[in-house]
Amino acid sequence: MILEGAHHRSITRTADGEGVCILDQRLLPWEVRWVELRSAEAAATAIREMWTRGAPMIGATAAYGLAMALAVDPDDASLSRAYQALLATRPTAVNLRWALDQVRTAVATLPELQRADAAFARADAICDEDASLCRAIGEHGLALLRSLHAANPDRPLNILTHCNAGWLATVDYGTATAPIYLAHDAGIPVHVWVDETRPRNQGALLTAFELANHGVPHTVIADNAGGLLMMQGKVDAVIVGTDRVTANGDVCNKIGTYLKALAAADNNVPFYVALPYTTFDPATPTGADVPIEERSPEELTRLTGPSADGIVTIKVTDSPASNPAFDVTPARLVTGYITERGVLASVG
Amino acid sequence: MILEGAHHRSITRTADGEGVCILDQRLLPWEVRWVELRSAEAAATAIREMWTRGAPMIGATAAYGLAMALAVDPDDASLSRAYQALLATRPTAVNLRWALDQVRTAVATLPELQRADAAFARADAICDEDASLCRAIGEHGLALLRSLHAANPDRPLNILTHCNAGWLATVDYGTATAPIYLAHDAGIPVHVWVDETRPRNQGALLTAFELANHGVPHTVIADNAGGLLMMQGKVDAVIVGTDRVTANGDVCNKIGTYLKALAAADNNVPFYVALPYTTFDPATPTGADVPIEERSPEELTRLTGPSADGIVTIKVTDSPASNPAFDVTPARLVTGYITERGVLASVG
Repeated sequence: MILEGAHHRSITRTADGEGVCILDQRLLPWEVRWVELRSAEAAATAIREMWTRGAPMIGATAAYGLAMALAVDPDDASLSRAYQALLATRPTAVNLRWALDQVRTAVATLPELQRADAAFARADAICDEDASLCRAIGEHGLALLRSLHAANPDRPLNILTHCNAGWLATVDYGTATAPIYLAHDAGIPVHVWVDETRPRNQGALLTAFELANHGVPHTVIADNAGGLLMMQGKVDAVIVGTDRVTANGDVCNKIGTYLKALAAADNNVPFYVALPYTTFDPATPTGADVPIEERSPEELTRLTGPSADGIVTIKVTDSPASNPAFDVTPARLVTGYITERGVLASVG
Repeated sequence: MILEGAHHRSITRTADGEGVCILDQRLLPWEVRWVELRSAEAAATAIREMWTRGAPMIGATAAYGLAMALAVDPDDASLSRAYQALLATRPTAVNLRWALDQVRTAVATLPELQRADAAFARADAICDEDASLCRAIGEHGLALLRSLHAANPDRPLNILTHCNAGWLATVDYGTATAPIYLAHDAGIPVHVWVDETRPRNQGALLTAFELANHGVPHTVIADNAGGLLMMQGKVDAVIVGTDRVTANGDVCNKIGTYLKALAAADNNVPFYVALPYTTFDPATPTGADVPIEERSPEELTRLTGPSADGIVTIKVTDSPASNPAFDVTPARLVTGYITERGVLASVG
């Protein structure tokens, strides 16, 4: 990832190796602030209160959180307590449990004095793996974008994306954005339509910020506009991330993804989902079996941003509001899944 | 319409008869302020800067604007100048030209001294006609909602609407909301899902305000949420308004309408468009022939609302933004058109 002109990862160990540094995503794009997490409790708060977000980053942060708990107290009770506390922070992301299980398995049979170091080492490895998975997703996606651009070589390749499945959501590269960054770096003229992504505006706030830092041309649009743009022939492909793909290929992703998939199908625009294999969840039969997280209505009725008076919160409405955070895109609407092992056609 | 417990119309002549009173919709729902328009220029500003909006209200305001121009100077040059200035205020609404033509035709052959009075009388008649058209739309829609409720009599009837096609957009009742108000008043338990309607938030700001004033149960949702709610069986019907229906039945309406129509079709939810016959535009063959108004990107990148510091504007992003204001819903996705003459099945 490129941030303010330099290479970084979204999560790194602190200089003394005992904690981690992450970006406080609540302040982006208005302020770039790295925060140090130095306890399992801090890691849990960072996940629950969405200082950080995105399935891979949730997993990585939780893995380090478990390591930090073991550095304080390496016994089995401590391990179990921290595991449960971290697992309870977000209900939808399947990577959270996967990452915690990785660390727990790595330390379970070790002497207590070796556990913290082993846990940190496993968390480091999870991060390295995530970065190389995203890089591989990017390379498979790049081949796809190269062939789409070859079909219309005289104009920029227009990609639409929803929410933020970029490097802020992963350790590096992102999932949906990895093919875009690699295509841009390979000299393919890419332009990205960035869905605002109400109600938390992760597209306008985070994806646009990432693309601007990397120098990728992009335009923010209302979530309502994607259908018109597809009808007008202004979108060559949709690429989104996902929190979970069920056994039948249904895609659980940020609320509104389903509407874009319908519009893509209606206009013969290819609709791709980018994900590491760890996001496939064969234990859940269909999207109808995924619990949909209902978040605070205040995410919809109140908005925060900078004004002349500093960072303030404004009120949109006093009416009741409902805020389901995810929806399900049926497999039949998916053209393919871009993974680290290649692009899989939909079985839907 | 019911506002703060009393009956009103959205546009009325001032006490001296020489101007009109409208609500300043830019301040709603935070402040209910009636403003007087006392010149053609003021009427043009009110339309262009969206103090008022909605196809019928644009037409009514423009008609009075022409009358006010003739009260100052009734000659042919003045008539032509004011006609052109008012026509240029908004490019998409077909009612604007219709209302201006009505007034111009009514005065064209009259002596100059009789023109202003005749123009005001014609504008008054346009308003009376609009109120009775909307009432009739409501009655035909009521019959429809009654039969939908009879199919599931044990639970509230859930209607989803997009943007504001309520009394704020018309002289009274609204188009899409007229059936809802009449159903509520008839004792049918109605609950309305109110799409926020980015980027100007007319759903969250205006429709929710209307429904709250009338006492109709409602819940504001992100524009992204409608698809999930339909998939979950939580929507019995969609009713929207329209700015123009082309000869083939395509529906031009607020950006995002098309996405809701796709979701309705995908989930077998009936999708209705409520409109007076004047909104049918047989001169335009299809939706592809309708010019799509591109509004300021700042509607997307900046948001205004009340905070602890008063009414302030916050910034969402510095990235470029695109803001097309309308989209086209193909006739094939429309279940029927609720008009003052009855409910027409789609020909799509």
